[in-house]
Amino acid sequence: MLRTHTCGELRIENKDSEVVLCGWVQRVRDKGSMVWVDLRDRYGITQLMFEPNDNQALAETIRSVGREFVLKATGKVIERVSKNDKIGTGDIEILVTEVEILNPAKLPPFLIEDETDGGDELRMKYRYLDLRRNVVRQNLELRHRVAIEARNYLDKQRFIEVETPVLIKSTPEGARDFVVPSRMNPGEFYALPQSPQTFKQLLMVSGFDRYYQIVKCFRDEDLRADRQPEFTQIDCEMSFVTQEDILNTFEGLVRHLFKVVKQIDLPTLTRMTYADAMTYYGNDKPDIRFEMKFVELNELTQGKGFVVFDSAPLVVGINATGCASYTRKQIDELTEWVKRPQIGAKGLVYIKAEEDGTFKSSVDKFYTQQDLQAIGNKFNAKAGDLILILSGETNKVRKQLSELRLEMGTRLGLRDKDKFSAHWVVDFPLLEFNEEENRWFAMHHPFTSPKPEDIVHLDAGNLGEVRANAYDMVINGVEVGGGSIRIHDRVLQAKMFGILGFSDEEAKHQFGFLMDAFEYGAPPHGGLAFGFDRLCSLFGGSDSIRDFIAFPKNNSGRDVMIDAPSTIDQKQLKELSIAVSKS
Amino acid sequence: MLRTHTCGELRIENKDSEVVLCGWVQRVRDKGSMVWVDLRDRYGITQLMFEPNDNQALAETIRSVGREFVLKATGKVIERVSKNDKIGTGDIEILVTEVEILNPAKLPPFLIEDETDGGDELRMKYRYLDLRRNVVRQNLELRHRVAIEARNYLDKQRFIEVETPVLIKSTPEGARDFVVPSRMNPGEFYALPQSPQTFKQLLMVSGFDRYYQIVKCFRDEDLRADRQPEFTQIDCEMSFVTQEDILNTFEGLVRHLFKVVKQIDLPTLTRMTYADAMTYYGNDKPDIRFEMKFVELNELTQGKGFVVFDSAPLVVGINATGCASYTRKQIDELTEWVKRPQIGAKGLVYIKAEEDGTFKSSVDKFYTQQDLQAIGNKFNAKAGDLILILSGETNKVRKQLSELRLEMGTRLGLRDKDKFSAHWVVDFPLLEFNEEENRWFAMHHPFTSPKPEDIVHLDAGNLGEVRANAYDMVINGVEVGGGSIRIHDRVLQAKMFGILGFSDEEAKHQFGFLMDAFEYGAPPHGGLAFGFDRLCSLFGGSDSIRDFIAFPKNNSGRDVMIDAPSTIDQKQLKELSIAVSKS
Repeated sequence: MLRTHTCGELRIENKDSEVVLCGWVQRVRDKGSMVWVDLRDRYGITQLMFEPNDNQALAETIRSVGREFVLKATGKVIERVSKNDKIGTGDIEILVTEVEILNPAKLPPFLIEDETDGGDELRMKYRYLDLRRNVVRQNLELRHRVAIEARNYLDKQRFIEVETPVLIKSTPEGARDFVVPSRMNPGEFYALPQSPQTFKQLLMVSGFDRYYQIVKCFRDEDLRADRQPEFTQIDCEMSFVTQEDILNTFEGLVRHLFKVVKQIDLPTLTRMTYADAMTYYGNDKPDIRFEMKFVELNELTQGKGFVVFDSAPLVVGINATGCASYTRKQIDELTEWVKRPQIGAKGLVYIKAEEDGTFKSSVDKFYTQQDLQAIGNKFNAKAGDLILILSGETNKVRKQLSELRLEMGTRLGLRDKDKFSAHWVVDFPLLEFNEEENRWFAMHHPFTSPKPEDIVHLDAGNLGEVRANAYDMVINGVEVGGGSIRIHDRVLQAKMFGILGFSDEEAKHQFGFLMDAFEYGAPPHGGLAFGFDRLCSLFGGSDSIRDFIAFPKNNSGRDVMIDAPSTIDQKQLKELSIAVSKS
Repeated sequence: MLRTHTCGELRIENKDSEVVLCGWVQRVRDKGSMVWVDLRDRYGITQLMFEPNDNQALAETIRSVGREFVLKATGKVIERVSKNDKIGTGDIEILVTEVEILNPAKLPPFLIEDETDGGDELRMKYRYLDLRRNVVRQNLELRHRVAIEARNYLDKQRFIEVETPVLIKSTPEGARDFVVPSRMNPGEFYALPQSPQTFKQLLMVSGFDRYYQIVKCFRDEDLRADRQPEFTQIDCEMSFVTQEDILNTFEGLVRHLFKVVKQIDLPTLTRMTYADAMTYYGNDKPDIRFEMKFVELNELTQGKGFVVFDSAPLVVGINATGCASYTRKQIDELTEWVKRPQIGAKGLVYIKAEEDGTFKSSVDKFYTQQDLQAIGNKFNAKAGDLILILSGETNKVRKQLSELRLEMGTRLGLRDKDKFSAHWVVDFPLLEFNEEENRWFAMHHPFTSPKPEDIVHLDAGNLGEVRANAYDMVINGVEVGGGSIRIHDRVLQAKMFGILGFSDEEAKHQFGFLMDAFEYGAPPHGGLAFGFDRLCSLFGGSDSIRDFIAFPKNNSGRDVMIDAPSTIDQKQLKELSIAVSKS
């Protein structure tokens, strides 16, 4: 090694040792007779001290360095006069006798500090410099830690990591595939996997019993802040299990990760049905760090002459505890907030529970104090509370009120990112009807098993009634993982493909290998996948998965640092038997 | 769980326990009053015993099952009358009281046994059945074990696993890229990485100090038995190191893996220069499980009237110890062997050291006994040895003799796959001249650093003289890993690109981001990558990496199980702004 120690490890016990350190110049302070340099590496910062008057060559060298120069410094560990208790090496400094510039550095385009002056685009272009910042590097260190702890936990539970192929077959169901032209098979294409779903099921058919993989997956979708064209899953599958076994196994994994990575004892995960999640939170991934449950008010609001409520399939509200003091202006602002196109509510009705025991509302002319009291009772409203009510078409109004609930949670400081509330949502519907395409889609994917007791509904054609053995793990309102018990029977699988609009031929062409496999002794099996990027960002207390990916792409799917994608040679295109088309 | 135990864990201590097992039917033996079933899962085999006369329903069920049916069996652990000491569960069997067929199975197209009757193509098509065979599953279990031990070792050495992107930029240098059309950037393409080389170097520039990744890489090359279009590397990089540090660190890793995975104490790795490897073994990855070193004979054979030797730039031989007893027929066969087009030698000269102290050779008329004795002495030949000599153009004849040496090693049983001989080959040339393209190529890759003391040759234009700080790890004649100290200086990197025929513009277009990065404080760094598939196959004693890949592709790059690659919809092509072209 060019160094004897890292910049993070020297202590007062090392006093008088001769050491060699390598690292980057964080800052230089030149006081004339003394020059100090903070030398930084991944492990920390150590202060170097130079006495330029004693050594002309040393003086010249050190006075030529700037921020981010790479140095190799040789010297003796001495005790600092003014100690710095903020850093581990703060009791010592190095009296440098020899210094070598290993590489000079141009002035970085932004500050390499926790608080930087660089904008997003600039930091993406110079990602290798952004990664030097402690906060960014620590995110990736956390990611490494989560991965290695997840692997060791699963290994102890006898899961085997098996690598499944990246060059697979395109299937039109689901999201858009990235494809790869095959040179050796002209006119044919591989696809990059959206998940290793069929392969992990085949591994169960193979008797692997317990499989996992931390694996890159790919979706060619339009991007948002929390989506990347390539992302990573902790993908898992088990044989001879019921849903209960899977919930317990992976609850165990997540609690282990919280324990070892965050030193947090996560309580046992509660469970909530999909139906309840929608009824009480208007959301299949409710944030239950705070209550503020939905209360349905149709019965209490009906027939009092308020046409808006009378004509609404759903009248539903939440209790913003302690917000009765909101001014007219604040309530108007909230009303505008829910009326924004992103939310889309028509209006907002409020009821304030005043300190004197009376109620004040925006619909006073339709509802008596007694009516309002009855509504207040349903919310257990106390003096000082503010009830916020929306109405309209059931699914839409639930979505709107869910947004309002989250917003109020944020405004009231109820969504502390250092507090973690994890739970399962279970009993998802198997299918959902898409009005635009006028057909049923699998809510999870086509391999998800209906609950055995709901197969009667499937057979009777009551497709909306069929629940699946499907489950999501939700932490702080983020879906961190989800999965299901799978179909392991060829006939049922074929029926599912039929319901989803596949012809027999299409099903055979795309998934024939899986249905064939089911005929050679497929065990009952199920599993789940965690969104690894999202799990890491949650652990790190960030909303953005990009902060936890070393080299992320921007919203146009570009890596602006390496400038990819890019055009390729005509020769390359010709070898691949493809051409770029105009339209 | 549907079971209380696996099929591998019950012992005599479990006698009288009520248990439930799940698994696959390995075989059924029906003796009328008793029926035995071997039930198999990943963990082992347990014998089930049925007394059909006592239970009509049970009898009917068990007599309907065949091989590979999936069963759930409930019963009591009893002591076996005739024990089987070949399996862990051999002392017990299960007296079954209840059995459920979880899934029936069609008769598999080949035997699910260690020795199978299935051909390669059939087993590839039904890979999910082939994976049920113990020998195949154990390969993947070994792979998992190697991966997790490698990760934990590197983690302890403070390496961080960082995921680098899969969708990157195509670069014409090196092997052919797989490309991915970008829908959002019409006419542009991503490429799949041939290795994360530039990204890991950027991570060093970022100060990550120690990086590793077990990562899929992609090369669109024509395939051979030991090549796959997608393969896996253990990719590593370190900062502030010399070559010596890297050799020691990764020698440590490999010795650790041998220790924990194979229970073998690998001796310290010897080191051999590339020049010596070529001189003594004709091969940059010599198998040194056996000696049989090359001896060059030009001096001794010159000027005796044998034109073949006189005109040859290189006359070189090996001593096949104890083979003087080879018959004329055997030697003729060996001569034919070296003359095959795959080897390409013009002929084979032999010298036998007879028991009576004389020499017999195929060139007796040119060489006296004294001449032959002198040659024999150079080989330390003893009575009974057979010296085999080839001659011709230096590089060609070395390659030919290397093949012959390996063949003789195999024939003499000197290449035991349970014996491991590991060493480093160092001091590779930086560049090699390609006659066909009439230009210099990087022997390793364009980022490899010349040895500082050889930069004079670079500057003087003696490009063939320049050695690199590059190294390969070779085990049993297989290159399992290789790497180099990298260039970390923009000027030197630009010079390298120039030597390799890049214009300044091309270099900037393709690798500008890396050269820019070198200007912002790049540390000295280096690393290496192990071929993970190959390393695993070596550990498993197999020549074929395919045996250690769950779902490999065939020699046309096809996955015959899922039938990929395949055609895609016109709609998909249109969205991607590409068309399939005729030629």
